[in-house]
Amino acid sequence: MRESELLAHIYERSKGLVAAGATLLVGPGDDCAVIGVGGASGAEMGPSMGQLLLTVDQVVEGRHFVRETPIDLIARKAMARAVSDVAAMGGTAMVGLCGAVLPRDYAHGEALFDAMARWAVHFGAPLIGGDISSLGAEQAGPLVLAVTIVGRVHPRRGAVLRSGALAGDGVYVTGRLGNSLASGRHLTFEPRLAEGTWLCDELGADLHAMMDISDGLGRDAARLGVASGVGLELDASALPLHADCATWKCGASDGEDYELLFTATGSKAVPAKCPATGTAITRIGRVVPSITNPAVVTFRMADGSREAGDGMGWEHGEEGPRG
Amino acid sequence: MRESELLAHIYERSKGLVAAGATLLVGPGDDCAVIGVGGASGAEMGPSMGQLLLTVDQVVEGRHFVRETPIDLIARKAMARAVSDVAAMGGTAMVGLCGAVLPRDYAHGEALFDAMARWAVHFGAPLIGGDISSLGAEQAGPLVLAVTIVGRVHPRRGAVLRSGALAGDGVYVTGRLGNSLASGRHLTFEPRLAEGTWLCDELGADLHAMMDISDGLGRDAARLGVASGVGLELDASALPLHADCATWKCGASDGEDYELLFTATGSKAVPAKCPATGTAITRIGRVVPSITNPAVVTFRMADGSREAGDGMGWEHGEEGPRG
Repeated sequence: MRESELLAHIYERSKGLVAAGATLLVGPGDDCAVIGVGGASGAEMGPSMGQLLLTVDQVVEGRHFVRETPIDLIARKAMARAVSDVAAMGGTAMVGLCGAVLPRDYAHGEALFDAMARWAVHFGAPLIGGDISSLGAEQAGPLVLAVTIVGRVHPRRGAVLRSGALAGDGVYVTGRLGNSLASGRHLTFEPRLAEGTWLCDELGADLHAMMDISDGLGRDAARLGVASGVGLELDASALPLHADCATWKCGASDGEDYELLFTATGSKAVPAKCPATGTAITRIGRVVPSITNPAVVTFRMADGSREAGDGMGWEHGEEGPRG
Repeated sequence: MRESELLAHIYERSKGLVAAGATLLVGPGDDCAVIGVGGASGAEMGPSMGQLLLTVDQVVEGRHFVRETPIDLIARKAMARAVSDVAAMGGTAMVGLCGAVLPRDYAHGEALFDAMARWAVHFGAPLIGGDISSLGAEQAGPLVLAVTIVGRVHPRRGAVLRSGALAGDGVYVTGRLGNSLASGRHLTFEPRLAEGTWLCDELGADLHAMMDISDGLGRDAARLGVASGVGLELDASALPLHADCATWKCGASDGEDYELLFTATGSKAVPAKCPATGTAITRIGRVVPSITNPAVVTFRMADGSREAGDGMGWEHGEEGPRG
């Protein structure tokens, strides 16, 4: 069973549940869950007051990094992956918690947690809780770091979901795509917190849907399309590729880019870069009614031919190297 | 390096930090962290509105359960351990998130997450987020479940900390102690959520300090004493032991009881049981000025002799079976 199926399985059971004192405003299946706290619903207080973002993300030795990876980069990736989910909602990180499983005779605990604490502060989510388990002398097993982030939504725009895309929207990505694993960028990427907030500031209600690209543009765009009930037509030649990424298809399927994928009102002017960070913003296609497409995501070539993109990327739980 | 040292190491870096939009009301080192959200400080809104409890706890195959443990009990323990931290603050669980690392070729994912979701709802913390990683075919490693709980504090009493004990207080425990691992109770214990809330209702401001007993009464009571700057004199003969727990010392050191340890104004009448659940409440000693004790925790025998209790129990990260 794949991760997406397992998670769907969990979440089906949480649907419609309202926990004591919290209102589940956005259930599982987006980059973060959104809960309203305070009063009957955080919504009454306005998004800035009572709406929290919650996400958990793990890195596992041998799956998300190799054993020889410098400790500072392991810690960085563990924090950055989780924080990227908050950026994907247009939110701001507030605090973090970390569960760690240390291999037997692990000698770098102090350096690791130093680095975790430092990166947590760097990304605006100081660690306020943790749990550490050490494997026994006879137990083989990888280093595991599970990071939970609590964030808050953009004070005016609120949480930007995957499900808001509308036919006619333009489709955009931040930064550049592709070759993240081989280049090592999967360890050093910058979560697009500043860009996510700026897009909310700049586009407001015209920013319709957003997510981060972790498993490959094709597969992730298909998730956005399914959540929104629309299709996406993307121009293969428009993809902003890293210089070391040879083909559009690598850019569409390599994964671990952690760039933002978003849609905005088609007629809205979207700046070509984020002023504060200089990060490029590239229009890569448009949102179409889903019925016009054989697949949710279609890549168009310069010669007019088309290729289905839904399967381009990684499914969690599949075999294969993930850095 | 032991877990307590490693965590202290992390937390030193989070001290005094105030994250965007959140006020850190209680930092790491208690059973849960407490943050204020909404307005400049959740405290302005009263504890019921803007104060959240946050905790993360892990269970690891081979450390917290053996491989042959029924899946339902693994899931139950994973949720119950984390929820117990919320009970220890007198709080109520709201929502949960779970990170899972599945061993290679793990065939029980669906049953495991079914059970996680069911127990999460049972304890009032429906799962609203998750992350699943599967180990590769060539990777050995244990099943790991990391559970984060978001809770809210008691609406009138607020969060009950470890640090509030005062000389002259009575010291109490809920339920019975000892032999949790051999008896299997470490898999089936009931987190004391109802009891924690009832103690807040019943004792209000006379409930001074509280925590749950996870690592053994002696060691955990010493943590409460250190946090409060006091000593604890406990009567060895007063400990409420399970019928299968042979000696007071087992009751003081076996660990994984997940009962509540609390202190209350010495003159305050504390009922002998929680009416709603029938859970016994037993007075086991008193809080003393720390300077009168050679150790933070002293057990007194019937013959007047004394034994230091600070080391009775488990230090996370120590070698040894933990169920």
